[in-house]
Amino acid sequence: MVGKILTMLGIKAIASYIPETRISNYDRTAKFAITEDFINEKIGVRSIAVKAPSEDSSDLCVKAFQALLDKTKLDKNSIDAMIVVTQNPDFNIPQTSAIVHGKLDLPETCASFDVSLGCSGYVYGLNVLSSFMKENGFKTGLLFTSDPYSKIINPDDKNTSLLFGDAAAVTLISDCAPKYLPGKFTYGTIGKDYEDLICKDGKLFMNGRSVFNFAAKTIPPDVTKCLALNCLTVKEIDLFVFHQGSLHIVNTIAKRLELDPSKVVFDAWDYGNTVSSSIPILLEKEISRNKAGKILISGFGVGLSWASTVLQKAD
Amino acid sequence: MVGKILTMLGIKAIASYIPETRISNYDRTAKFAITEDFINEKIGVRSIAVKAPSEDSSDLCVKAFQALLDKTKLDKNSIDAMIVVTQNPDFNIPQTSAIVHGKLDLPETCASFDVSLGCSGYVYGLNVLSSFMKENGFKTGLLFTSDPYSKIINPDDKNTSLLFGDAAAVTLISDCAPKYLPGKFTYGTIGKDYEDLICKDGKLFMNGRSVFNFAAKTIPPDVTKCLALNCLTVKEIDLFVFHQGSLHIVNTIAKRLELDPSKVVFDAWDYGNTVSSSIPILLEKEISRNKAGKILISGFGVGLSWASTVLQKAD
Repeated sequence: MVGKILTMLGIKAIASYIPETRISNYDRTAKFAITEDFINEKIGVRSIAVKAPSEDSSDLCVKAFQALLDKTKLDKNSIDAMIVVTQNPDFNIPQTSAIVHGKLDLPETCASFDVSLGCSGYVYGLNVLSSFMKENGFKTGLLFTSDPYSKIINPDDKNTSLLFGDAAAVTLISDCAPKYLPGKFTYGTIGKDYEDLICKDGKLFMNGRSVFNFAAKTIPPDVTKCLALNCLTVKEIDLFVFHQGSLHIVNTIAKRLELDPSKVVFDAWDYGNTVSSSIPILLEKEISRNKAGKILISGFGVGLSWASTVLQKAD
Repeated sequence: MVGKILTMLGIKAIASYIPETRISNYDRTAKFAITEDFINEKIGVRSIAVKAPSEDSSDLCVKAFQALLDKTKLDKNSIDAMIVVTQNPDFNIPQTSAIVHGKLDLPETCASFDVSLGCSGYVYGLNVLSSFMKENGFKTGLLFTSDPYSKIINPDDKNTSLLFGDAAAVTLISDCAPKYLPGKFTYGTIGKDYEDLICKDGKLFMNGRSVFNFAAKTIPPDVTKCLALNCLTVKEIDLFVFHQGSLHIVNTIAKRLELDPSKVVFDAWDYGNTVSSSIPILLEKEISRNKAGKILISGFGVGLSWASTVLQKAD
């Protein structure tokens, strides 16, 4: 077999870290006056993953990186650039990427910075890192997502504490035999509605209904736009990986687009909405399955902000 | 005259906002047991600019943008992408770029995100935004820097309160007759020393000696590396615009590189070290002078992190 020569940057591997500790939503039905049907049919989150109090955002990145080393032959000294996508940094100064850089003992020549975005952050980050790498002739980069909302959630707030879980992921971007290549991206911002998801005085507030309505209204036409931009039809997509905001929003978007339900992934049952890590956690599984040829990914939330693209299997 | 056709993205205009309120360092010599010589010969900051308590980081961006509108014929609806470089966001959630997007009523199609970096943030931001725009075929972008340290400075801390001033800047990146085109970039990170500049519990701490030593040791060889990468010699550079950390660090870097002092800018006397806005504030003046053909810019600080490039006059 003659190998296909690829010089494009793409996703070579993904690894994630989901803390073992769980809080069951079934144990909180009385506290929040909710039914089991609400858990099973609306939010789709049976339990949320919670990091240890001693773990900070950079530590979650380090653990995801250790999982990456377990599955790849990555040489740390080959890393040219790294990004951490977070809105829960260890500190506001310095950037968490510098802390992760230090903890991983990466080379001094490695460029690093944080991108502050929420649930659209993975899709943005893929393009921000890849285009930065391409422009600079970099071959190996790491895209971390780590946004543990347990740092800012009021455990008595029904709107947020049943939904969000802690996790981190790291995506290895490489020009050396990548598994999936990103296509063209669509982006959008509705900044005037920024108060719908906001952290004030260290506590998260979410207007769940507004955020739901935003996603239900904005994402279906954005998916259509993204498909057209990539010269593809809905039928040509093998898998739709939407941000796992809740079961209800994923189902609503799928219905409005009349998608085949078997092509739409929802799998946040056991850990919750992990913000910018929700998409890479699912992609990690898809890469190991090695089946889907074309995967549409779409992230949406904080900002309000959204981003979509199509990933094409490289071989 | 036959016009030169330029399709590269570059700097078309820069505008800045420096709050009018000043705190004089001469008035604080007794409080901090410093001499006037220390002000005039070491730190190079006679007074610091301080924003009004009611102004937040996004407001400084809005004022810089108003100054940009005063000097360009920019159509807001043409803006494809915007970045805010800050480590003092209005809130941690959402990103400040979304708030600025909302306040400026930018189009929904405008991509936006924050980059978290300190004094290396302008140089990084130029490349991050330009490469993101290039990859997406975007023609018009805004790079905001707004990092008002008055939000986190302890006024009794001699290491920080004499040095840092508040300001914001906005750089218009365009493929339509840009004034300066960036060359190739050098980058670096020493993450293990991240505690040298850190904000804990809302207060900034700086190990001034360590940060000085880092910059004095790291930046001269990085400038040499950046020049080589751009196939240029020291003599071919018309102007060196280093991050305005202090008069002493700028002079030290200049001496170690044996630069002609007339080619090295220092001008933070009247407002202080404005973090990621220090370089664009000076570049704004250089663009209006319209003289320097090749300008080397280098930012360094929080992380620890640094970035350098050469700007080439486009006509």
